[in-house]
Amino acid sequence: MPDIHEECGVFGIFTKQMNSDVASEAYMALYALQHRGQQSCGIAVNDDGVIRSYRDMGLVPETFNPEILATKLGLGNMAIGHVEYSKYANSSRSDAQPLVVRHVKGTMALANNGSLVNAQELREELELKGAIFHSSTDAEIISHVVIQERLSSKSIEEAVEKAMFRLKGCYSMVIMSPQKLIAARDPEGFRPLCLGRLGEDYVIASESCAFDSIGATFVRDMKPGEIVVIDQSGLRSIETHCGSKGHICVFEYVYTARPDSVIEGASVHEARRRAGAFLALESPCQADVVVGVPDSGLDAALGFSQQSGIPYGIGFIKNRYVGRTFILPTQKQREDAVRIKLNVLKATVAGKRVILVDDSIVRGTTSANIINMLREAGATEVHVRISSPPFINPCYYGTDIDSKDKLIACKMSEEEIRQKINADSLGYLSLNGVKKIANCTTGCDFCTACFDGVYHAGVPTQTESKYDKFNYHINEKR
Amino acid sequence: MPDIHEECGVFGIFTKQMNSDVASEAYMALYALQHRGQQSCGIAVNDDGVIRSYRDMGLVPETFNPEILATKLGLGNMAIGHVEYSKYANSSRSDAQPLVVRHVKGTMALANNGSLVNAQELREELELKGAIFHSSTDAEIISHVVIQERLSSKSIEEAVEKAMFRLKGCYSMVIMSPQKLIAARDPEGFRPLCLGRLGEDYVIASESCAFDSIGATFVRDMKPGEIVVIDQSGLRSIETHCGSKGHICVFEYVYTARPDSVIEGASVHEARRRAGAFLALESPCQADVVVGVPDSGLDAALGFSQQSGIPYGIGFIKNRYVGRTFILPTQKQREDAVRIKLNVLKATVAGKRVILVDDSIVRGTTSANIINMLREAGATEVHVRISSPPFINPCYYGTDIDSKDKLIACKMSEEEIRQKINADSLGYLSLNGVKKIANCTTGCDFCTACFDGVYHAGVPTQTESKYDKFNYHINEKR
Amino acid sequence: MPDIHEECGVFGIFTKQMNSDVASEAYMALYALQHRGQQSCGIAVNDDGVIRSYRDMGLVPETFNPEILATKLGLGNMAIGHVEYSKYANSSRSDAQPLVVRHVKGTMALANNGSLVNAQELREELELKGAIFHSSTDAEIISHVVIQERLSSKSIEEAVEKAMFRLKGCYSMVIMSPQKLIAARDPEGFRPLCLGRLGEDYVIASESCAFDSIGATFVRDMKPGEIVVIDQSGLRSIETHCGSKGHICVFEYVYTARPDSVIEGASVHEARRRAGAFLALESPCQADVVVGVPDSGLDAALGFSQQSGIPYGIGFIKNRYVGRTFILPTQKQREDAVRIKLNVLKATVAGKRVILVDDSIVRGTTSANIINMLREAGATEVHVRISSPPFINPCYYGTDIDSKDKLIACKMSEEEIRQKINADSLGYLSLNGVKKIANCTTGCDFCTACFDGVYHAGVPTQTESKYDKFNYHINEKR
Amino acid sequence: MPDIHEECGVFGIFTKQMNSDVASEAYMALYALQHRGQQSCGIAVNDDGVIRSYRDMGLVPETFNPEILATKLGLGNMAIGHVEYSKYANSSRSDAQPLVVRHVKGTMALANNGSLVNAQELREELELKGAIFHSSTDAEIISHVVIQERLSSKSIEEAVEKAMFRLKGCYSMVIMSPQKLIAARDPEGFRPLCLGRLGEDYVIASESCAFDSIGATFVRDMKPGEIVVIDQSGLRSIETHCGSKGHICVFEYVYTARPDSVIEGASVHEARRRAGAFLALESPCQADVVVGVPDSGLDAALGFSQQSGIPYGIGFIKNRYVGRTFILPTQKQREDAVRIKLNVLKATVAGKRVILVDDSIVRGTTSANIINMLREAGATEVHVRISSPPFINPCYYGTDIDSKDKLIACKMSEEEIRQKINADSLGYLSLNGVKKIANCTTGCDFCTACFDGVYHAGVPTQTESKYDKFNYHINEKR
Repeated sequence: MPDIHEECGVFGIFTKQMNSDVASEAYMALYALQHRGQQSCGIAVNDDGVIRSYRDMGLVPETFNPEILATKLGLGNMAIGHVEYSKYANSSRSDAQPLVVRHVKGTMALANNGSLVNAQELREELELKGAIFHSSTDAEIISHVVIQERLSSKSIEEAVEKAMFRLKGCYSMVIMSPQKLIAARDPEGFRPLCLGRLGEDYVIASESCAFDSIGATFVRDMKPGEIVVIDQSGLRSIETHCGSKGHICVFEYVYTARPDSVIEGASVHEARRRAGAFLALESPCQADVVVGVPDSGLDAALGFSQQSGIPYGIGFIKNRYVGRTFILPTQKQREDAVRIKLNVLKATVAGKRVILVDDSIVRGTTSANIINMLREAGATEVHVRISSPPFINPCYYGTDIDSKDKLIACKMSEEEIRQKINADSLGYLSLNGVKKIANCTTGCDFCTACFDGVYHAGVPTQTESKYDKFNYHINEKR
Repeated sequence: MPDIHEECGVFGIFTKQMNSDVASEAYMALYALQHRGQQSCGIAVNDDGVIRSYRDMGLVPETFNPEILATKLGLGNMAIGHVEYSKYANSSRSDAQPLVVRHVKGTMALANNGSLVNAQELREELELKGAIFHSSTDAEIISHVVIQERLSSKSIEEAVEKAMFRLKGCYSMVIMSPQKLIAARDPEGFRPLCLGRLGEDYVIASESCAFDSIGATFVRDMKPGEIVVIDQSGLRSIETHCGSKGHICVFEYVYTARPDSVIEGASVHEARRRAGAFLALESPCQADVVVGVPDSGLDAALGFSQQSGIPYGIGFIKNRYVGRTFILPTQKQREDAVRIKLNVLKATVAGKRVILVDDSIVRGTTSANIINMLREAGATEVHVRISSPPFINPCYYGTDIDSKDKLIACKMSEEEIRQKINADSLGYLSLNGVKKIANCTTGCDFCTACFDGVYHAGVPTQTESKYDKFNYHINEKR
Repeated sequence: MPDIHEECGVFGIFTKQMNSDVASEAYMALYALQHRGQQSCGIAVNDDGVIRSYRDMGLVPETFNPEILATKLGLGNMAIGHVEYSKYANSSRSDAQPLVVRHVKGTMALANNGSLVNAQELREELELKGAIFHSSTDAEIISHVVIQERLSSKSIEEAVEKAMFRLKGCYSMVIMSPQKLIAARDPEGFRPLCLGRLGEDYVIASESCAFDSIGATFVRDMKPGEIVVIDQSGLRSIETHCGSKGHICVFEYVYTARPDSVIEGASVHEARRRAGAFLALESPCQADVVVGVPDSGLDAALGFSQQSGIPYGIGFIKNRYVGRTFILPTQKQREDAVRIKLNVLKATVAGKRVILVDDSIVRGTTSANIINMLREAGATEVHVRISSPPFINPCYYGTDIDSKDKLIACKMSEEEIRQKINADSLGYLSLNGVKKIANCTTGCDFCTACFDGVYHAGVPTQTESKYDKFNYHINEKR
Repeated sequence: MPDIHEECGVFGIFTKQMNSDVASEAYMALYALQHRGQQSCGIAVNDDGVIRSYRDMGLVPETFNPEILATKLGLGNMAIGHVEYSKYANSSRSDAQPLVVRHVKGTMALANNGSLVNAQELREELELKGAIFHSSTDAEIISHVVIQERLSSKSIEEAVEKAMFRLKGCYSMVIMSPQKLIAARDPEGFRPLCLGRLGEDYVIASESCAFDSIGATFVRDMKPGEIVVIDQSGLRSIETHCGSKGHICVFEYVYTARPDSVIEGASVHEARRRAGAFLALESPCQADVVVGVPDSGLDAALGFSQQSGIPYGIGFIKNRYVGRTFILPTQKQREDAVRIKLNVLKATVAGKRVILVDDSIVRGTTSANIINMLREAGATEVHVRISSPPFINPCYYGTDIDSKDKLIACKMSEEEIRQKINADSLGYLSLNGVKKIANCTTGCDFCTACFDGVYHAGVPTQTESKYDKFNYHINEKR
């Protein structure tokens, strides 16, 4: 599934104890959120009003070490952190977050997961007033809007509250002012953001698995539209923008989130297992063994097996040593590249009719390679079952999917896809099915725009040119 | 299972085509063998008689990149490679392999997986003749012995043949002379070593999974005691030291090897699955779900589930981003360190009686932590099943297990261990059971010395002092 | 002279040939300007409207290499570059220049040498309108002012012209818009900035030595207050802010600039030699040999020798391998630190009466150490002659001198200083003398504020708190 | 003078105080010896018998930092260090010294400056007995010989004494055994090696400038052939191999050594100054100014000026920021490369007849470039004076000069050279002249083999093939 990327994960911690090692807590939490972004990461620490930060390209364990945590960040009473997958080819250190800026009332640090649909309009509006931009991030646009509102507000939280009237689209952000930790989730709640406690302290994270990694306790999901303010006097909530029941991205359950996270009251693992079970009901098949594509297809494969009674098998071994593996372009076949990551377990599939469960088909190339590997290993039949409906629409709310011209489901019928990937049969989970996989206890509904084209926060009115996407340093030329 | 370490993996390739990119093949093969050693790695390339090499501390994808492959190694017609876990705390670049040395007849590169029981005697014997050592590796001792024999031999393979009369213990090595690629396995065949073909070319590797990664075909395991010589005239075998049916380390099946490898004709995955099934027969248990400790316990858990009929569940999520994660010694509890690597899937275990399958218990600390995590996540009972017998003896043949005073099974009864790790019940696979897990088609028997104390190649007559182990620069002091 | 630091050097190049290797020219020019700033450096390349940049902490040859020049910067038709010594202890990559920002009309890159006296006022004025700052540099303030003016201007040069009405103090800057290279020098011309040609192309640099390094020809100094605009139609000059004859910093001749540069028509080397000669006239002395403190005291020592007839000698050897030498705090004596950089040539001074020529005394500690080294090496007398008057005032125009409480000349009389540094006699060049060292052919006068307190562009009306200087992330605390 | 390279510098320290920071002393001493080798460096520390070492490619301040000194080397009571210029293109970390080896009697560390003429014979002799080599260094050959002799010796010093009967050529080495620091100089004393005291401690270094850098006192030069042994009982000398008055390399005075060093009682600076004065007598010239090529020509230029009465001028500025500057092969002209390092001071030479003093002409290319730069800067005449005779013979004793076919003096007459470098006149110091430049107080004579072909320790009887030099991994091919 290398062609779909979630863009970011965020974390925040507030403790009343000055001189705490909040940097190490942020480090461990970001390490648990690493699956949400592998290109860059950063941490900002607030030491009683003085903010220090460190950010760089690379994985969390590559970027930080005890010396950097101690010398570049040090002790403090608040910290926020960020992991990012950037969609821009030319991404650089200046795009890494948290963003730390100085403004009229002091300093602010901000980290965001999401994508604004009015980013281009806001930037132009700001530029027309003379604003200058150092990066291509939404985080910098949001910072401008918040600071502008700060001029006429009594507090940073009031500024965030006002700014949210101007931000359209998807955002789950943490903000650190000299004295406060603030978290805000867009009114539709497209991306997850939850609240926890670590002893007496408060923590905020994109996913609950970050709480587990530091021994914190999950308290609740933030409401769609909610602003949470944490300072020495405790936690309070601003619900001005609340009202919608919310539309959490269903693809968080299908692929993005870690299986051990619980989002809107529903276990991600359980949602995936149910997706597999529904798939077995919707698209049954005679076979000898059910295998999942690691790691995201394993839970659905187990669910398929449990529902169908067909034995579950471990079909693949994934190389655990990922890191900065490079591509070898001179390799015999570019398609062989998948072999270095994934190997078939012949003992499981040889001589058997295999049901292969995966979470999605994007371009079809990877699926074709995997099916080919299964056949080489002796599988007599390969039946592909996908635990979500076909992708046919772009995501404007923070998931980076290929453009329409590369999405196989936009160009081919199901039968054509089956032939292209050389499967004996092919079945997708239905739209109705995917809407039932997670039993959200919070009343939150799903965003399924990538499957059905229903965009609850609108679409971009103005899009950047393709060229601009890959190099924001493009220009006036007059 | 962080307290047990296999020490090495080796690879070799010979092609008749000069100026081939053998370095890239070695890179990909070592990447597949990374699980056998994560401390250092290296590749040596033979370019028509000129040997270039590169080695360093670190993982394969961290150490090598296309520029290093191209500029430091370049093209050639042979290559050997090595990955290593060093048991010495002060290990350094000079311990990394392949070792490349110049001698009277030219140059030789050597990479080895194993451990000699007469290393200390050989080193003293060599030192008494004036030999000097740059490292603390067996590879350097073996190089000295081979080169000494080379003086009175007609060929490098004859030198290896003679040297093997002097080497006692475990070794699976690849040697590259200016014109030949040689592989040799000790007469008991303690460690795996197998032969494959890549088109017209020959490849040698510790495990067959390395062949899969480069699209090569498995041909056969090397026989215990066999020497294989590959040069422009083809491949030939020297069987002077053959005769024993061999005793392959059973722990390769239980833990060390990759599940997708096939050793002595037996699938490692299948052996683990069978271990789980035998365990279900030997040590049955009433429960609601069977979960395995990732990654090595998963196959056995599946086997236990299949045999017992108790549903298989995914109980843990393992952080995929390993790399150079550092230890945070200031953490609340040292025991919490496991959380950063492993998290429980509450949805699987909450309110359930859980059977936890793992491959071994070394010190007991990790097991206790994992069981505690399961209980915190709501498991009502935790029944531990171990897919191998208790460790009670040191391994002198290449697996680095803790010293006896740290092995929990040497100090406590099974019931005491159960109490210490806070399990509701505890069961180990029997010695008879473990001997049956792999259906070797080659007639090879098992080494089970760590369980039963039977050492087929003897034990060290002279051991290095503890101090010496951690700093070989210890001295005469006269 | 480690206690005085010039802050920056700038460079710009414009060629009509698209796809030129302007990055390499900038690299070599910055390497020649390295003496003006050793903490960070950067280059921005304009590739027909697309601006790419790279900047980092470190020396020019440490930061750039052929791969970075090729992959991060590439070919283009314009480039600007910057070397910086930052006065802030916590300086970081985000303070490095050139600054590249996106604004309403496109992109702008800016690099500056100087210091505004109204920086704090401008920042507050900007912040009150909602501006946010990512760094603590004047360059970012200037960027804001220029871009604000850009909103109501027909061109970028008009915006610069208008902005200069608002900027007070010292600046010598290069600006790159998508289609133009612009250079501007403050109306007093405190810092040098000159214009050259490289074939058909135009180049701009802080000092003429940068032209020599790339084979360019010096054309002329920019006038105080001049704006130069270079684009495809050629070069034109805007003289709105011209009028003052200018006041070039006299300390550029005494210490800052490279001896091979020519500033305002006067050779720096020649100015230093004349300073030495004047010193011999003003403060004569009986002695056997004249030695200079390397490197900045050598020219003046030669002048003293030539005027006085006392033989010139090479008194010290300076270690050529500077780089990132670290301080060893555990050394026997902190004062010994100078030994690692400088050693006395005993053959020159033993048994002799020595005249030691240096360019300035800041704290006195280094001078005392050097005199002590001379005496240990056998000098019978040490007469100190300083080629500039005593520092008694802070510089607000871009030279970072210690605060008054650390300047020895603010606290002690000349006789007290002589005793403290243990000299047999001590003489400074007079204020009148230093004003005559350089024969400027451009009619430019000197800024001698650090000696006489006459500030031609005023002093800061509002100063940042000390705390703020060392950590700009200080905050509102409300 | 980039075409001549000294190969090495060595240092050793012995203190009776255990747990001393000898690593930092070695660091500072090597930093002072950096001019003797810039490719790699290393330090080995002896901590009461346990030897730890660290070595790598790069300059001393790049390779070491406080953390590496503390964690990799730590405290101890002895240390040795080494800086190296390797003549092999493919030099690597395994060629860096000190070499640390384990042998029958313990551990030994060795660092050497020199070149054996019987290296090839010794290696073959050793290889015929089965020795294996990890590097292409003489240091490894010497280690083998010493350790072989150690087998039949009562002590390490006796082994060194015996080994010296077998070593032919040039060596100045320091050896560290668990309990002793040993220094040895070849019987002709080709390379300098001297003894000093640091308080109660003993220090050994290639040049006395290393003593100055750590505050140590010069005691005396080691005698040609002398072995010095330092241990807890003090210092003693073995003079078995003494007898020759010695032949110190005269080129140490001309170019290699630092001017502030004193070798065989003669100041290097003074020797160079005298060389310039002799040159003025032997090869007088009418001119307006005398300039030297930095840094090695400056002292001779001063001597020439003093003798001739023609004023001394500073003719060039050398870029102080050397480090790892890379070559830009795409530069307009390869000849321009010198500009980045050196710039002419026009004020000194414009309109003048210039005498240019340099220490040698190797290929002539650099001289031609420099003369061209002087003419471009306005020099009306350029008279070249070289402070040593023409190079016409290879050095087999440790200075790496180009092969004969590249030495301009082997191919052209003086007049042809003058024309090629475009000088108005050219004069070399005579052989008789160069033999008088240093007033050695130790009775030591000079090696002038590179000028007159008299080799006091013979020439290699067997030379390695050119190919072998650049890649020692060449082979048998049988």
